[in-house]
Amino acid sequence: MSLAEILRDLVTANRILAHEEVVDAYGHISVRHPDRPDRFFLSGSRSPELVTADDIIEYDLDCNPIDQRGRAQYTERPIHGGIYKARPDVQSVIHNHAYEIIPFTVAKGVKLRPLLHTSAGLGATIPVWDIRQKFGDTNLLVTTLAQGNDLAEALAKNRIVLMRGHGSAVSGISIQDAVHTAVYLKVNAKLQAEAMRLGGEIIYLTEGEIAEMSKLSQTGHGRAWEYWSRRAGAAKS
Amino acid sequence: MSLAEILRDLVTANRILAHEEVVDAYGHISVRHPDRPDRFFLSGSRSPELVTADDIIEYDLDCNPIDQRGRAQYTERPIHGGIYKARPDVQSVIHNHAYEIIPFTVAKGVKLRPLLHTSAGLGATIPVWDIRQKFGDTNLLVTTLAQGNDLAEALAKNRIVLMRGHGSAVSGISIQDAVHTAVYLKVNAKLQAEAMRLGGEIIYLTEGEIAEMSKLSQTGHGRAWEYWSRRAGAAKS
Amino acid sequence: MSLAEILRDLVTANRILAHEEVVDAYGHISVRHPDRPDRFFLSGSRSPELVTADDIIEYDLDCNPIDQRGRAQYTERPIHGGIYKARPDVQSVIHNHAYEIIPFTVAKGVKLRPLLHTSAGLGATIPVWDIRQKFGDTNLLVTTLAQGNDLAEALAKNRIVLMRGHGSAVSGISIQDAVHTAVYLKVNAKLQAEAMRLGGEIIYLTEGEIAEMSKLSQTGHGRAWEYWSRRAGAAKS
Amino acid sequence: MSLAEILRDLVTANRILAHEEVVDAYGHISVRHPDRPDRFFLSGSRSPELVTADDIIEYDLDCNPIDQRGRAQYTERPIHGGIYKARPDVQSVIHNHAYEIIPFTVAKGVKLRPLLHTSAGLGATIPVWDIRQKFGDTNLLVTTLAQGNDLAEALAKNRIVLMRGHGSAVSGISIQDAVHTAVYLKVNAKLQAEAMRLGGEIIYLTEGEIAEMSKLSQTGHGRAWEYWSRRAGAAKS
Repeated sequence: MSLAEILRDLVTANRILAHEEVVDAYGHISVRHPDRPDRFFLSGSRSPELVTADDIIEYDLDCNPIDQRGRAQYTERPIHGGIYKARPDVQSVIHNHAYEIIPFTVAKGVKLRPLLHTSAGLGATIPVWDIRQKFGDTNLLVTTLAQGNDLAEALAKNRIVLMRGHGSAVSGISIQDAVHTAVYLKVNAKLQAEAMRLGGEIIYLTEGEIAEMSKLSQTGHGRAWEYWSRRAGAAKS
Repeated sequence: MSLAEILRDLVTANRILAHEEVVDAYGHISVRHPDRPDRFFLSGSRSPELVTADDIIEYDLDCNPIDQRGRAQYTERPIHGGIYKARPDVQSVIHNHAYEIIPFTVAKGVKLRPLLHTSAGLGATIPVWDIRQKFGDTNLLVTTLAQGNDLAEALAKNRIVLMRGHGSAVSGISIQDAVHTAVYLKVNAKLQAEAMRLGGEIIYLTEGEIAEMSKLSQTGHGRAWEYWSRRAGAAKS
Repeated sequence: MSLAEILRDLVTANRILAHEEVVDAYGHISVRHPDRPDRFFLSGSRSPELVTADDIIEYDLDCNPIDQRGRAQYTERPIHGGIYKARPDVQSVIHNHAYEIIPFTVAKGVKLRPLLHTSAGLGATIPVWDIRQKFGDTNLLVTTLAQGNDLAEALAKNRIVLMRGHGSAVSGISIQDAVHTAVYLKVNAKLQAEAMRLGGEIIYLTEGEIAEMSKLSQTGHGRAWEYWSRRAGAAKS
Repeated sequence: MSLAEILRDLVTANRILAHEEVVDAYGHISVRHPDRPDRFFLSGSRSPELVTADDIIEYDLDCNPIDQRGRAQYTERPIHGGIYKARPDVQSVIHNHAYEIIPFTVAKGVKLRPLLHTSAGLGATIPVWDIRQKFGDTNLLVTTLAQGNDLAEALAKNRIVLMRGHGSAVSGISIQDAVHTAVYLKVNAKLQAEAMRLGGEIIYLTEGEIAEMSKLSQTGHGRAWEYWSRRAGAAKS
């Protein structure tokens, strides 16, 4: 895939995340530079629904803009830089506050776990990171490299890390993969909350089932990407 | 009804199921061939909202395409083949992941039952099938004939079978009937969950009431079909 | 108000009820003839969102059409006839299955009561009618005059009667009044269910507060009617 | 900011509050006169979604119109007058019935508290005012100066006061600030209810965190304002 195609997909992903209500006024998605693993692309400070190609800024992994041209920046770009530094396998990162997941970031002792086959991409373990543990009272925003690195450490080898009272960081091996995971993170959170209220013991996916699903080609992802793109009013890519 | 009308209704049904949020990126509906009971029609691999007449593929009951013409196929077509083979009375099958029903597929010991007169078509008994019981750890997808046959066996003489951690298969005596049942399956699941939370004992429909409703002509279905078609932007058929 | 204006409002009310999701494919609203209290107007059998002036049929209180002209009829018109006969003060009746109220029709011992000032129009008491009590196992539809009369008896002097496993009948002193009550019945049901789940004792409106609100002029209703009409794409009337 | 700009923002705010479902047919937002602190601006009696520049009326703090020109008035303007008199720091007031907050106004002993970083603007304490305590059985509307003053007294130094069985009054240092707080009040109420149902102890924002967030510049508010304006179909301002 060419850089131009990837950047076009990044704009489409912004629209999809807004349309599927993974993000609202806030939240962002980045992609690693396909040729330079020490760089990534992220929009300047705008609500995802409004992001265009002109808003995309290139960054080094310390979150310095390569060519800012006066554009305002997201203050929370260390979420992205921190994860790209710690996890060479990750190609795309989404930070979001999807409403459905927030309760799982603040309810002590309650674990979010995949129970639906399309949410197997969430992985068997979803850690929760609390910025207060290491940094005390803050405005909860991840604005320093130290905070970004600490978040990445909490993510460890997993796909997703929840952020207490704030949201989540979702990683993927491609933009499409990260978007798919972020959408079904939201769906799974909603369904798990509903299932817990029915009063029975819940049957989650087994580790074996999660492993089997990870062997699937991404055909299904392609179908979903086409569908979400159309819904968001973006051309199929 | 001519084959052309039935295929047009099949496309409309795809749009309705998407618009009423019975399906999202995933899910599919098929119809048995009106003249050849050993054949059925199902879209190639696309999200239901995007399905057109050109996507419809004819299959035999072993799920071999009669005329594939290079189109990608749903891997889960054995859901359809399995049910058509076991149940000569069934003319249409819907596989879906409607969010409202998933909790009832994973909450042990909690039974989904009709409580609303328009959901009498769900039938008195709705079994839950767990692919793991016979096939162990899988990716949960019904991709072999053996799995499709096992699912049909769990369905038995009922209208609907829930699939653990996955969704459901809904059967009908016509496309309109299957769509009506799938929509009100979703509605009933939502309302039953809500009613359970109010804390009182729930009054479900009696078997006698379900039987009385099954005697109704499908006038009401016609009214609903017209309504859903318009909402989905499809011409009335 | 002229008959022409009232019939135009009846069409608008159908659209509003559909747009505000008080009705879906099913449900209907009628209005008493302004000059002949022994007559009422009700659409022929169509989903409310699709009703036009040409669909409106005039009925006597035994639910016989005055001028049917081949149009299909709602089978449940005895809901309307029964209430108009028993309650000379009622000028408009809405039958609906709004999803939010169904749980309160099937959860034994749980009473729906107004807790929001805009839902004072629900009245202090909302009885629940179960067709099975007098008529045994039926298809739950109110299709005979005897059933309509029995429902009206359960309504008694109240504004609303819930129907077990089915929905509700809402009465009003005008189309606007009935629509306002039906919308806030739905809202109140949703909010009461939510409030019950918070775990504290609930503070409902007092009878004195309900009485005070009933003295309000209908200025507020006018504001809401204008708002709902616009949302439903109908001209202000 | 010029008066013209502020009035244009007031119209935009009406549209945003309607589109984000903070208000429905009812609810209103006012702004203090930038040059005359003893005056404020508020629409005449219309649903917020329909408010235009021509509907805006100027008031003194006793809620007398300066130039009514025959326009109907909201009866509840003392909510605004009362708060502007008691709180010179407040520049904008929103009265709303957002459905998500109503349960917290009627569930005894249950406190609404911020748990999400974007809802830090709610403040650490959110009092509940019950009109019945001082004024007995009323129609719950705040229609007298005495009632408005009593409400303002309950608000005290906080950002928000809930009103039992009715809604809330939200204050801000600007229109944008009040809108941001009102939107995230609604979001926080929904998320807190959801979190409470998961069964674990809830981690709320600490007072230190709330204080840290209040130091943030309003860059984020600008991003949200742009986003909400676009969604509501209003030009960016």
